[in-house]
Amino acid sequence: MSVSNQVTELRRRFDAEIFPAQCPSRMVLDHVTSKWGVLVLAALAEEPRRWGELRRIAEGISEKMLAQTLKTLERDDLVHREAHPVIPPRVDYSLTPRGEELAALLVPLLAWVIDHADEMVTTERG
Amino acid sequence: MSVSNQVTELRRRFDAEIFPAQCPSRMVLDHVTSKWGVLVLAALAEEPRRWGELRRIAEGISEKMLAQTLKTLERDDLVHREAHPVIPPRVDYSLTPRGEELAALLVPLLAWVIDHADEMVTTERG
Repeated sequence: MSVSNQVTELRRRFDAEIFPAQCPSRMVLDHVTSKWGVLVLAALAEEPRRWGELRRIAEGISEKMLAQTLKTLERDDLVHREAHPVIPPRVDYSLTPRGEELAALLVPLLAWVIDHADEMVTTERG
Repeated sequence: MSVSNQVTELRRRFDAEIFPAQCPSRMVLDHVTSKWGVLVLAALAEEPRRWGELRRIAEGISEKMLAQTLKTLERDDLVHREAHPVIPPRVDYSLTPRGEELAALLVPLLAWVIDHADEMVTTERG
């Protein structure tokens, strides 16, 4: 199915708009395309991570934003949090099966962005 | 290549982080995953649109945000703006070849979100 037909199909399901403003899909879209949501999902798509690793990989994220991003992704059942009863405490984050499904679509998009970003930023338009 | 390996590959190119904070790719990622950027790109992936159609499809967008979103996407060479010298004035927006490439990756992600949003929003987690 062509990309154009895919969008037509999506719009048909909503009776005009693609993501009606009050629709759950708009909310989920905000989560999975949020600046930090994308970076955290991609980092976990590689392998399970601890808090400190995520902070390092999603460069620039604050403690507060990381906590909030992980909480949102957990609530969406995209990320699984596992606290190990050891000393010092250790918490691992990983993708759920649903998160892996999403990552399989998200990562090629990220790769495309990385491949094209330099030429896009330097493109001068009349 | 597995999703995990794809991410490893992306990280290797940046020497640890996926999208270094000061990198053009982070900027482009912000554009193409912005709340309104996604909706406008998807609407144009279906067919060229006029201003008023975009406003209707990206439900909830303000005039100002639509203008800003289109300008950013034009600057990124994702959207083409064509003003027709007719009265009343008519302006068409369409995807550039680069925009179509991106849309081919973005639309399946949107379809996935739409397919899963309801169950994600109602999922209750302990």
